[in-house]
Amino acid sequence: MKTLGIDPGSSVTGWGLIDGSASRPRLIECGQLRLPAGAAFHTRLLELRRGIDELLVRLRPETAAVEWPFHGVNARSALQLAHARGVLLCSLAEHGIEPDEYAPATIKKAVTGSGRADKVQVRTMVLRLLSASGEQVRGSDAADALAVALCHQQSCRHPAAGTTPSRRGPRTWEALVAEREGRRP
Amino acid sequence: MKTLGIDPGSSVTGWGLIDGSASRPRLIECGQLRLPAGAAFHTRLLELRRGIDELLVRLRPETAAVEWPFHGVNARSALQLAHARGVLLCSLAEHGIEPDEYAPATIKKAVTGSGRADKVQVRTMVLRLLSASGEQVRGSDAADALAVALCHQQSCRHPAAGTTPSRRGPRTWEALVAEREGRRP
Repeated sequence: MKTLGIDPGSSVTGWGLIDGSASRPRLIECGQLRLPAGAAFHTRLLELRRGIDELLVRLRPETAAVEWPFHGVNARSALQLAHARGVLLCSLAEHGIEPDEYAPATIKKAVTGSGRADKVQVRTMVLRLLSASGEQVRGSDAADALAVALCHQQSCRHPAAGTTPSRRGPRTWEALVAEREGRRP
Repeated sequence: MKTLGIDPGSSVTGWGLIDGSASRPRLIECGQLRLPAGAAFHTRLLELRRGIDELLVRLRPETAAVEWPFHGVNARSALQLAHARGVLLCSLAEHGIEPDEYAPATIKKAVTGSGRADKVQVRTMVLRLLSASGEQVRGSDAADALAVALCHQQSCRHPAAGTTPSRRGPRTWEALVAEREGRRP
């Protein structure tokens, strides 16, 4: 299942595509869409649409998730972000993809085990989970987008987590990494 | 100059197209895009894009303005509105139109003379300025969108208002209506 994660921004939007299984996720490709800094806002939104449309045609993800990034940002930034997010959700819908959304704390918790992890921790765990090098994941927005994709992949593996828990309960990424590294979480 | 005014909403988006001159504006057409109430948010955004794209192809406005509708709405509504607005601005940019934006108080002041006018006053003045009947302008969102267009038409007439005022100064709609009705403002 090719899963696209998106970390939306009104200046830089990170994206990351993974496949494989939740216990052995694999990095396909990631990057950042940079919007022209000096351009009018509507022009930047159009560039964002063109960028995401090009990615969706080329990468053909089967599922996607977009961060819900409004916690702790000021009102003006939140409104700008929401404009960008509207464009992204619309393009995903046009390509027949029903995007899921996750709050930052949920994403951080899924990837690092803590909802309060910092950017360095998230990036470190993303590289570790995907067995990727720093060269393969350039920019913190790309790493954040991969974290969104990993969170979604984990959530799809446990679609009913919380409502119909398995006997062992949903496994955290901490447990998955520990398992891969042959140690107890 | 065909001017499109848009009153964005995450449920109903009003639109109104006018031409003529600022002293004798003329209604071409107006209406409301209703988004499917029960549908997922991304599906509603896609419907909004399809609706506005169809309008832009059919109506071919030369200029457009979109209300900046965030004053006095709660945070959740504002974020939803901003998603919808992102889709609208992006479509306008794609059709080569640079949208202008006006705050509600500016629009109300341009149309009624008061930035604190209520919906009924706005609608009344819109019908009066356009010599239109209630039948021609159905729904308060369509009337609001026409108010945006009228505000923009007035602003284009006085592009440098405030910086290089004419000897008489920019005329208000109050003055324009009074002039049309043959009385002093």
